[in-house]
Amino acid sequence: MPMLNPADAAFVARLAVLLPEGAVREAEPRYVEEPRGRWAGQAGAVVYPRRTEEVQAVVRACADARVGILPWGGGTGLVGGQIMPEGPAPVILSLERMAALRGLWPEENVLIAEAGMTLAAAQEAATAAGRQFPLSLASEGTARVGGVLATNAGGIGVLRYGNARDLCLGVEAVLADGSILGGLKRLRKDNSGYDLRHLLIGAEGTLGIITAAALRLVPRPAAEVTALLVVPDPAAALRLLTLCQTRVPGMVSAFELIGRMGLDFLAEKMPEVTIPFASHPAWCVLLELGLPSVFEAEEVMATLYAEAEEAGLVQDGVIAVSEAQRTALWRIRESIPEANRRIGAVSSHDISVPLSAVPEFILRADAALARLGEWRINCFGHMGDGNLHYNVFPVPGRSRKDHEHERDAIKTCVHDLVHEMGGSVSAEHGIGRLKVRDLEKYGDPGKLAAMRAVKTALDPMGILNPGAVLRQA
Amino acid sequence: MPMLNPADAAFVARLAVLLPEGAVREAEPRYVEEPRGRWAGQAGAVVYPRRTEEVQAVVRACADARVGILPWGGGTGLVGGQIMPEGPAPVILSLERMAALRGLWPEENVLIAEAGMTLAAAQEAATAAGRQFPLSLASEGTARVGGVLATNAGGIGVLRYGNARDLCLGVEAVLADGSILGGLKRLRKDNSGYDLRHLLIGAEGTLGIITAAALRLVPRPAAEVTALLVVPDPAAALRLLTLCQTRVPGMVSAFELIGRMGLDFLAEKMPEVTIPFASHPAWCVLLELGLPSVFEAEEVMATLYAEAEEAGLVQDGVIAVSEAQRTALWRIRESIPEANRRIGAVSSHDISVPLSAVPEFILRADAALARLGEWRINCFGHMGDGNLHYNVFPVPGRSRKDHEHERDAIKTCVHDLVHEMGGSVSAEHGIGRLKVRDLEKYGDPGKLAAMRAVKTALDPMGILNPGAVLRQA
Repeated sequence: MPMLNPADAAFVARLAVLLPEGAVREAEPRYVEEPRGRWAGQAGAVVYPRRTEEVQAVVRACADARVGILPWGGGTGLVGGQIMPEGPAPVILSLERMAALRGLWPEENVLIAEAGMTLAAAQEAATAAGRQFPLSLASEGTARVGGVLATNAGGIGVLRYGNARDLCLGVEAVLADGSILGGLKRLRKDNSGYDLRHLLIGAEGTLGIITAAALRLVPRPAAEVTALLVVPDPAAALRLLTLCQTRVPGMVSAFELIGRMGLDFLAEKMPEVTIPFASHPAWCVLLELGLPSVFEAEEVMATLYAEAEEAGLVQDGVIAVSEAQRTALWRIRESIPEANRRIGAVSSHDISVPLSAVPEFILRADAALARLGEWRINCFGHMGDGNLHYNVFPVPGRSRKDHEHERDAIKTCVHDLVHEMGGSVSAEHGIGRLKVRDLEKYGDPGKLAAMRAVKTALDPMGILNPGAVLRQA
Repeated sequence: MPMLNPADAAFVARLAVLLPEGAVREAEPRYVEEPRGRWAGQAGAVVYPRRTEEVQAVVRACADARVGILPWGGGTGLVGGQIMPEGPAPVILSLERMAALRGLWPEENVLIAEAGMTLAAAQEAATAAGRQFPLSLASEGTARVGGVLATNAGGIGVLRYGNARDLCLGVEAVLADGSILGGLKRLRKDNSGYDLRHLLIGAEGTLGIITAAALRLVPRPAAEVTALLVVPDPAAALRLLTLCQTRVPGMVSAFELIGRMGLDFLAEKMPEVTIPFASHPAWCVLLELGLPSVFEAEEVMATLYAEAEEAGLVQDGVIAVSEAQRTALWRIRESIPEANRRIGAVSSHDISVPLSAVPEFILRADAALARLGEWRINCFGHMGDGNLHYNVFPVPGRSRKDHEHERDAIKTCVHDLVHEMGGSVSAEHGIGRLKVRDLEKYGDPGKLAAMRAVKTALDPMGILNPGAVLRQA
């Protein structure tokens, strides 16, 4: 693969001629700062196309000059896919000004959004039409449609509605040669050729730049009922999940595991978050059901609760009986990442294992880490998807800085175990630049070779998000 | 692309050395007969590997000798993906003897099946474990897991559970260079690199040979209730669908449109199929709900019926109140393809359009065909997916042979309209060899170019299913 050239002043001046006035600017700090402050990026300029043809013009110019392109959505990624600290300075191609709703068809449960629309705006457009766009995650006010598709974002609605890829019917994208992939069909079934949509989704901008997408909407459940349930242990949580999915299949909207450490961290750093238990239970589950109007929602939850209690799966719990109570329960779950930030993790892990292996994974990971030292472990997350955020913190009196030299050993310990148990060391955040070596280490060799062949075929000069996902050759 | 060599006697003898005794045989007639008798195929031999490594050995030998490989599942495809009438004779690689269940995890709702397992056997394995594998189609007793994934098969369960691709968590495959893609993870979330699973699914064996798959299961609905409802027209059917999805979101298991011609054909050719209406209605819908035990299923259907009748969406109908009645209603829908075969279509079309365009498509297609002559049109199918089987038959007294010379004009007429309306001319059957020209004509040029680049990258010699999906260069 030939070396790339930096986006120098002369090249940036050429871009300025191609685009409308004001569409080429110097990079503000937010474009070169990693959200967790881990490293600094670089950029020759930021360009703000407003139309697909302008994206095309930028890509063609970059292809001609062999200049790298860093596609930019909301900048909320956690694996450095949007930050390029090394190599010749790229052009940041921001989709922020390309954010129109191209159409919404309520009777089809479809909307078409441009890549720069925020996830929150897509949700609002759906809600205004009496529908729901069920992808939901912490950064939804900032994350943008193109970015959540490029990273195949997950979040709290995956159990019921799937990842970003499951909610996408088609994409429009600009490929590395400047050609446009026109795939904005609003079809539920289309078996005409290779599914390049799914190849671009999750490719983190390395195979093409998504400029718009046809997204699936769903009907809004008539009633939602939420409960925070104390369970004896993760194995009981798993059996509770099976019970719920058997009794009300397809209606379990969220099943989030919360451990005692998560509650302790909240009490320590965010005491304004109310925890409805006198003492913090070892494990609890935030369960939400979304039910049609033909149900008495609270009655269904109460029946499930009684059955679970009878079976020894639930020991205590609260069922929200008002919207305010529901919000309060969700606030517990949603505040955990902020409490984590205030404590300061030594190492964070976005992992998944086969669902039935979750309890064993937690036991074995705790035991393995105990052999490396003394930690506080906050294990929480999307248990219904087999996806845990398994985060390791210093004990009181120590800080993450005291453990910098141990971070690699901790990460390796956790990731080796995940791999051994048939899991993934990147469940929902992607590879970016942070996990390129993990992918090389744990990825299937046949898959990696095929990935490299596809990358070379679709981006022979390597100008699209250079160094993300795959190491730049 | 270099020319391929035929699988001649010397090459077949070499294969016989690589595989266990009895694993290389002459091709029986069923391997070279197209299911509808449209054309004849050819084959140097059929090989029956039993293990992934044997598939690998065959692929390596074919790659060395530049011999084409025709992957074979159940042979039920309708677009000639499994029949090669032209070019150097290939080796048929049958997965029929590689049909083991590698594992089943009820609490994860996952099973792993080898590619040669029939769809019916996969369904039975799931049922035996108290679960359901919801992919269901007419040929399920013969079609095999590898084939339904390679073609991304659809069928009657798509509305609720998705196509084959939506039910697949991972695949194992042998690529054109003989390497193994090991992707049998049982994970709901795995964002580690490009999604090659979805690239292989629907590629019809042209990018790799699927040897095993991890498949998603679902809980069995506690109760199913089925009705055949007379609707005034397809527009009313569409509004009925929206009503159902609003009232019981996620619980509509089937929504199949049946036109008067379908019932007339049954009365003419299969009078043993009971139709529960004194006179054949212009349009009816086979509606099935799958409900949890907390529901009174028949009560829900009755409530829906009353609301739909009040809104003028339903004029008459029968609700099955026994399993025998439910079977009888499904028999109507499931017998239509056989009645069609006995009548003999001039041209059949597996099309999809955006859901809200279905009523307009039917009106416009009928009008356009009327300008070409006199026909009987049987339009039926998966209305909930926007997927219709729009099939054109001779009027009584004429046969399909009388219209051979008009078939292309009819097909073009229908397909042009589908394309104009943003639809797909291959909704669920795939491209195979039958629709290669349609893909070239209607496919997005950017997509076609990228498809060719991917094909060349993953199968540079073009040995995998030569001439299917993409024309052999």
